Amino acid sequence: MRIGIIGVGVVGSGVVDIIEQKQKEWAALGVTVEIGGICAKSDVELAPYKAKNYRVTTSADELINDASLQAVVELAGGYELPRKWITQALQAGKHVVTANKALLAKYGHEVFPLASQKKCHLLFEAAVGGGIPIIRSIQEGMTGNQIERLSCIINGTCNYIMSQMSQSDLSFEDALKQAQAKGYAEADPSFDIEGIDAAHKTAILASLASGHRVDFQRMHITGITGVQAQDIQYAKEFDCCIKLLGNFRRVGERIDARVHPCIIPNDHLLSGVNGVLNAVYLECNNLGATLQTGAGAGKLPTASAVVADLVSLERSLGGRAPISMEWFNEGNNAELMSIADLETRYYFRFTTKDACGVLAGITSILSKHGISIESILQKNVKDPGKVSIVVLTERSKERDVVAALKEIDCLSAVSEPSRMLRFL
Amino acid sequence: MRIGIIGVGVVGSGVVDIIEQKQKEWAALGVTVEIGGICAKSDVELAPYKAKNYRVTTSADELINDASLQAVVELAGGYELPRKWITQALQAGKHVVTANKALLAKYGHEVFPLASQKKCHLLFEAAVGGGIPIIRSIQEGMTGNQIERLSCIINGTCNYIMSQMSQSDLSFEDALKQAQAKGYAEADPSFDIEGIDAAHKTAILASLASGHRVDFQRMHITGITGVQAQDIQYAKEFDCCIKLLGNFRRVGERIDARVHPCIIPNDHLLSGVNGVLNAVYLECNNLGATLQTGAGAGKLPTASAVVADLVSLERSLGGRAPISMEWFNEGNNAELMSIADLETRYYFRFTTKDACGVLAGITSILSKHGISIESILQKNVKDPGKVSIVVLTERSKERDVVAALKEIDCLSAVSEPSRMLRFL
Repeated sequence: MRIGIIGVGVVGSGVVDIIEQKQKEWAALGVTVEIGGICAKSDVELAPYKAKNYRVTTSADELINDASLQAVVELAGGYELPRKWITQALQAGKHVVTANKALLAKYGHEVFPLASQKKCHLLFEAAVGGGIPIIRSIQEGMTGNQIERLSCIINGTCNYIMSQMSQSDLSFEDALKQAQAKGYAEADPSFDIEGIDAAHKTAILASLASGHRVDFQRMHITGITGVQAQDIQYAKEFDCCIKLLGNFRRVGERIDARVHPCIIPNDHLLSGVNGVLNAVYLECNNLGATLQTGAGAGKLPTASAVVADLVSLERSLGGRAPISMEWFNEGNNAELMSIADLETRYYFRFTTKDACGVLAGITSILSKHGISIESILQKNVKDPGKVSIVVLTERSKERDVVAALKEIDCLSAVSEPSRMLRFL
Repeated sequence: MRIGIIGVGVVGSGVVDIIEQKQKEWAALGVTVEIGGICAKSDVELAPYKAKNYRVTTSADELINDASLQAVVELAGGYELPRKWITQALQAGKHVVTANKALLAKYGHEVFPLASQKKCHLLFEAAVGGGIPIIRSIQEGMTGNQIERLSCIINGTCNYIMSQMSQSDLSFEDALKQAQAKGYAEADPSFDIEGIDAAHKTAILASLASGHRVDFQRMHITGITGVQAQDIQYAKEFDCCIKLLGNFRRVGERIDARVHPCIIPNDHLLSGVNGVLNAVYLECNNLGATLQTGAGAGKLPTASAVVADLVSLERSLGGRAPISMEWFNEGNNAELMSIADLETRYYFRFTTKDACGVLAGITSILSKHGISIESILQKNVKDPGKVSIVVLTERSKERDVVAALKEIDCLSAVSEPSRMLRFL
């Protein structure tokens, strides 16, 4: 198989490295992957590849229109150009491998049905969970199951920040600075810390798990910027930790898909997944619970997933039909459950004046809204005359919680907006 | 695709259930799996299937020789008959799906090359790790990696026993009884607790990871019968746990493959895998560390893995070449490293008289053999006049350890044979 590679940034250069590394070994197994062209924006980026006698070009069209190439690997990033290239490549009957989760979350409903129509493979293992073979596991390993629930730690930047806040008692700001210093967070980290990247990936996983297109723009998304060091410390006192999770669940005919920080009991498999690791936890009707974890980002992990797709593609060219993703279209949008319909356990933290009757005021409002308290913890805080009241609830309804917190925040003894976290 | 199923015990009946459950859904995706015949030893076992109008037979040969069947699913268990059936089926050009790890560990070097020669698929996802898609992950997800190390919790019976000993402070005997009562251990549990089943599976994983056939009969195998409750308690004091692990590692051109109880630090991902769960931990050159965990046994988990193979096979019949396992032959046996060449950290427990100079005697022997002590812990035991001395070592050589322990066991103050465990 001859391929063209568009984009030789971090991941693309890793793909070339690994192909060079493994080519001989594959040949012995009858697998041939040959780089027939490399495209990048500038001659500077292309220079090292030109020096190694690869055919190089700054024109993606040149690769897409080259009849000698059977597949195009899109690793350029961004939305609009990749959308155009992938569409053109599929229309030209070329198979496509991409790591572009943003593109698939946004335009998957265009490119997946087009791939099916053209009987082309459109592979995207590297788009979710970096090098963890989670797409393959769901698409091929779980065909004998129905996935009932999925929870994922799918953004390494956020998981690093939350882990550092917990393990080194850092504030959010300091943990973010550390992540930036280590290269785990961008200079402008908003895409990660606001949960957008996690939402792209969760939408893709929730789509695969449900067989309906999950539109990430209609999902509930809360990032990690509102998680405070105190909440992490209190979570520890209840033998829990806090992580940003993408969640998927079937609720009758509807799909519950959302991204927000969750409290996780420390005996849950996901609680041990720290640092920049990613993890996907599945509950399936036949298999039960399963977890896959590993590096969710980085040059070689992500590149190794792209390469796995290339080998799989090469093996399939003898005539294996592509796995159909035709169902990933707008006519088959998932009916998403509103977050207001959620029912789960909650963590609240109230900062109040240290005065008589405050606790009674809060608990009576919770009770009025039908929210039962499971545990309660009152602590003095640094600020003299103030206390923290931490409440863990029994299963409660999100709409009741929102109403109760709104009412509590109006109490004169309550000095800061109350904090709320949902349990896994 | 029409298939014949040989064996409708626990797993086989689950396979029929899941096919019935999923058939319609698959059909919508263009995947057809049709049960064209079911074989079992007795009419009694076949009765429920006959009642549902399946074609049933007590003759496996009848299915194997039926030209209308494209694949045979072997779920009978045992060695010799399945070896004969699989060989015949492959010779007749039929694809084969099996869950029989014992057969593959013992006769894989016959059936894998035969499958390659006949250009047939021989799929075995269910043979290792129950429903965890680990075979697929290694064969397809890791093609862009070299697997440097693998450690697996691959026998649910042993993991349950070790977890119960740890969590409920049970003796080995009591934990085994509990496992038997819950149906997690056989009446004769020796196959599991002696590590044989774990060795079958570890040999298969080590073969896939290395690209050489690993002969399980030449591996070092120690089961869990020698692990005492005290050792588990001491491990806890060092923030570690003890589990039966299958281990694989590349050592230059040689392969280090072995099964024995290991001490695992509690911050390692494998330490959180408790109860009957299985897990496979990989370290790969490009991806880094990754873990997959889930149900390693049981009717539906295992059956769901068989079914995943069937769907994958059906998708491949258009012309995808089988993944070559031709290399799994005796001419390509792995050169196994002897356990005597191992170098790792060790845990020792000595039971000695509570007398002056005993510790000095032990430590001087360790020192003489070049074994450095990292930590030491001395405790009184119930037995009056006796003490336990627990030693954790720096990296040491197995042959030095064996020599030193032999010498220590001859000391008159040492009252019981010393216990030794290797670190992960």
